[in-house]
Amino acid sequence: MTSNMVDKTVDELKDLKISEVALQKPCADSKPSNKSKGGKFVLKCPKGMRDYTPDQMAVRELVFDKIKKCFKKHGAVQIDTPVMELKEILTGKYGEDSKLIYELEDQGGEILALRYDLTVPFARYVAMKKIKNIKRYQIARVYRRDNPAMTKGRYREFYQCDIDFAGEYERMLTDTECVKLVCDILQELDMNNFTVKVNHRKILDGIFEHCGVPEDNFRPICSAVDKLDKESWEDVKKEMVETKGLDPAVADKIGVLVQKKGQFDLIEELEKSDLGENKSAAAGLSDMRLLLEYCELFGCLDKVSFDLSLARGLDYYTGTIYEAVLAPDAKGENVGSVAGGGRYDELVGMFAPKGRSIPCVGVSIGIERLFTIMEKKLQECRTSSIQVLVASGQKGLLKERMKLLNMLWDNDINAEMLYKANPKLLTQFQHAETERIPLVAIIGESELQEGKVKLRDTATKEEKLVDRASFVEEARSLLLNCGS
Amino acid sequence: MTSNMVDKTVDELKDLKISEVALQKPCADSKPSNKSKGGKFVLKCPKGMRDYTPDQMAVRELVFDKIKKCFKKHGAVQIDTPVMELKEILTGKYGEDSKLIYELEDQGGEILALRYDLTVPFARYVAMKKIKNIKRYQIARVYRRDNPAMTKGRYREFYQCDIDFAGEYERMLTDTECVKLVCDILQELDMNNFTVKVNHRKILDGIFEHCGVPEDNFRPICSAVDKLDKESWEDVKKEMVETKGLDPAVADKIGVLVQKKGQFDLIEELEKSDLGENKSAAAGLSDMRLLLEYCELFGCLDKVSFDLSLARGLDYYTGTIYEAVLAPDAKGENVGSVAGGGRYDELVGMFAPKGRSIPCVGVSIGIERLFTIMEKKLQECRTSSIQVLVASGQKGLLKERMKLLNMLWDNDINAEMLYKANPKLLTQFQHAETERIPLVAIIGESELQEGKVKLRDTATKEEKLVDRASFVEEARSLLLNCGS
Repeated sequence: MTSNMVDKTVDELKDLKISEVALQKPCADSKPSNKSKGGKFVLKCPKGMRDYTPDQMAVRELVFDKIKKCFKKHGAVQIDTPVMELKEILTGKYGEDSKLIYELEDQGGEILALRYDLTVPFARYVAMKKIKNIKRYQIARVYRRDNPAMTKGRYREFYQCDIDFAGEYERMLTDTECVKLVCDILQELDMNNFTVKVNHRKILDGIFEHCGVPEDNFRPICSAVDKLDKESWEDVKKEMVETKGLDPAVADKIGVLVQKKGQFDLIEELEKSDLGENKSAAAGLSDMRLLLEYCELFGCLDKVSFDLSLARGLDYYTGTIYEAVLAPDAKGENVGSVAGGGRYDELVGMFAPKGRSIPCVGVSIGIERLFTIMEKKLQECRTSSIQVLVASGQKGLLKERMKLLNMLWDNDINAEMLYKANPKLLTQFQHAETERIPLVAIIGESELQEGKVKLRDTATKEEKLVDRASFVEEARSLLLNCGS
Repeated sequence: MTSNMVDKTVDELKDLKISEVALQKPCADSKPSNKSKGGKFVLKCPKGMRDYTPDQMAVRELVFDKIKKCFKKHGAVQIDTPVMELKEILTGKYGEDSKLIYELEDQGGEILALRYDLTVPFARYVAMKKIKNIKRYQIARVYRRDNPAMTKGRYREFYQCDIDFAGEYERMLTDTECVKLVCDILQELDMNNFTVKVNHRKILDGIFEHCGVPEDNFRPICSAVDKLDKESWEDVKKEMVETKGLDPAVADKIGVLVQKKGQFDLIEELEKSDLGENKSAAAGLSDMRLLLEYCELFGCLDKVSFDLSLARGLDYYTGTIYEAVLAPDAKGENVGSVAGGGRYDELVGMFAPKGRSIPCVGVSIGIERLFTIMEKKLQECRTSSIQVLVASGQKGLLKERMKLLNMLWDNDINAEMLYKANPKLLTQFQHAETERIPLVAIIGESELQEGKVKLRDTATKEEKLVDRASFVEEARSLLLNCGS
């Protein structure tokens, strides 16, 4: 927290104290204050956050399961970390985005902040546990105090699904596996129309050096380049020159280069050009060639574009960088980036006791945007998985329904009844239909006397009278045919 | 936040500002400050919080899956809510525990707090979405700024698994289903030695009224009674008399009653006593009788104890209350409560625009304690699910290994290789053994020339030379026998 922010917070707290005193009287001490000043209680989620309804959760579970399947296919193990970190862990890792970190006042003395991503906590984890190598995935919420466009699926609280490879490995192998994984996941979700942009921080640094950017301006210029997917070159150049003090001639030299994209052809073109003599650029280009070769082996080269305008905003990247973008949808709407990542060889070293680093590379799936797309696709996703509704058309049989229900539960069949003493049979049938419960088990006085249960297929309306002793097994075999 | 707390926070912020200024110089502006005052960077999780390792995550996933299975068996749908709520949503709901709520300073103007449980956010959700009835489950982290004994599995950040029934239903049906669900879940986790204590707030209120407690002292006396599971009656009485100003004679009358437990016998005894004439107690006792009858129908009466000392700390309960406790383990260690809940018919009304409430009852599984127990039980849980390791004993075959690996991935087989150019064959076999990878696919020059692949069963060391064209199918059928 800067001194300015402290002052601001103190002022806000004073205001709060005043309004607190004003509010204290109307509400008795232990009673809830469900009225604000205007006398109306505003029911809402915090700004930029949302509830997930059962329909949305059903989609979310499905998407998570598919992503986990892909992570496991590549042998990743799962970890989790606290939603908070000591604030100093996060400080200085996110460049211009550091202002978006949520801070928290712990009266216990520790200064805490909510995690901004899963990468920095992962690096802290690797350093703290002195891990030499790990392939890990983590699916968890992160927090950014942004002013998000919620209609576009952007929130202040959102899920990320990350996979990262930490360890000393043969060059470009795990970098390529990240690209392959992104392709796997998007294809698993039936989103086949996408491009994985790749670039390399060493190539960008080489370009900046080659064009004459002063070294201490590399990162600021890099984050200007990063805006090329949303802004025109003219606007980006303006930022470089006017905000970041770059010589316009230098900016123009950069502009020619960073608007190029291709595959092996572009690598060759750059290697043959003056830029090829820059040491940093040459090293990056050699990595890129290997990455593309390996992508070919992994059958995903057709999805990959070597794109010099890709820069990524974060400070900690040191090598390969990625970003996956979906092609505009049928209405021409641009969803934008659905995955991003890169190599960060120095981050673990920032935390390690002796500064000894572990090279890392990873990718993060922008799951909230995928949810939004999948929600539109899967509007018919069933939220409950009840297989049998226990019903009766006669009065006074509540306890008999409960007995049948319990037999089903004890045999691991998902079952429910209406929580009314004497519901109408029609109401019960309608409930089975709207909730798409495939089977209804019906009991009445005659069934009770004869030791029978009636089973009704909700779809076909066919009914079958079966022995009570075997009714669970009969239900189970009927369910197989109901396709539930 | 009370005025006092505001003052305290302001003071703390001032201190922070001073130390901030002192700290500012040694660390350059955008560089990470990985050193604190002493020159050493302390790598840790926030107080009372922890990382989950892959071993722990494997156990956690297994426990979650079993619990979800039980929730789904009863037809519950899943929701999720933000980790934060507007602070006023949480105010006045938790009695003496309100001081444990984590507050957060949002510079956007909203005063936010981290959720303390999942019940209040659920009630807010039901009111906000004007839901008439729902059976929902939610598995999520909650936050309490406690001074927890981490060795006993208590944390400041921990998971809760809640199921709640909202809606106007036939008396005691959903209350009983909560008991049944707790029994289902603990049995699903092979923890068969437990008791579900049940009691009723109306019986407690009846006892307090009958014994002569002034009405405005009901809740404070109730939370004193709640401590009877950890403290002796003498200590509890002391709290009632000395801290809460109760007449010692009244306390003694309470003491005789709240130390009773039983089943139908106790209900009869109380109904026949003077207490039976108290209107509130009589209503509660009638509910309890129905609950026990229904538990008998659901086959779980033997697990249930009607225990008058059970009070539950939270303010919002209005009817049935529950708590499940495990029997002490082999070493006589007491794990304590592993589930708790109750009926809260007024909570939704506190949020609803016209104060119209929806009756609710629910139970929360204390999953962290169950993790701790399950971690001890399941020390051999495998963390990765790799089925095939692709290996070679010869140099220069990296790309050939990658091709085989890709064939396996594209056929949905979980596979990996070592990320080295030329690893030793022995190293690769050892990796398969330690990671318990059932099958190794080996390629060498001769296999390459002959269009073959060698498949090796890690357990039996048996090898089989198969055609490259059918190697994926061969691997798949061998895996069936490996029991992977």
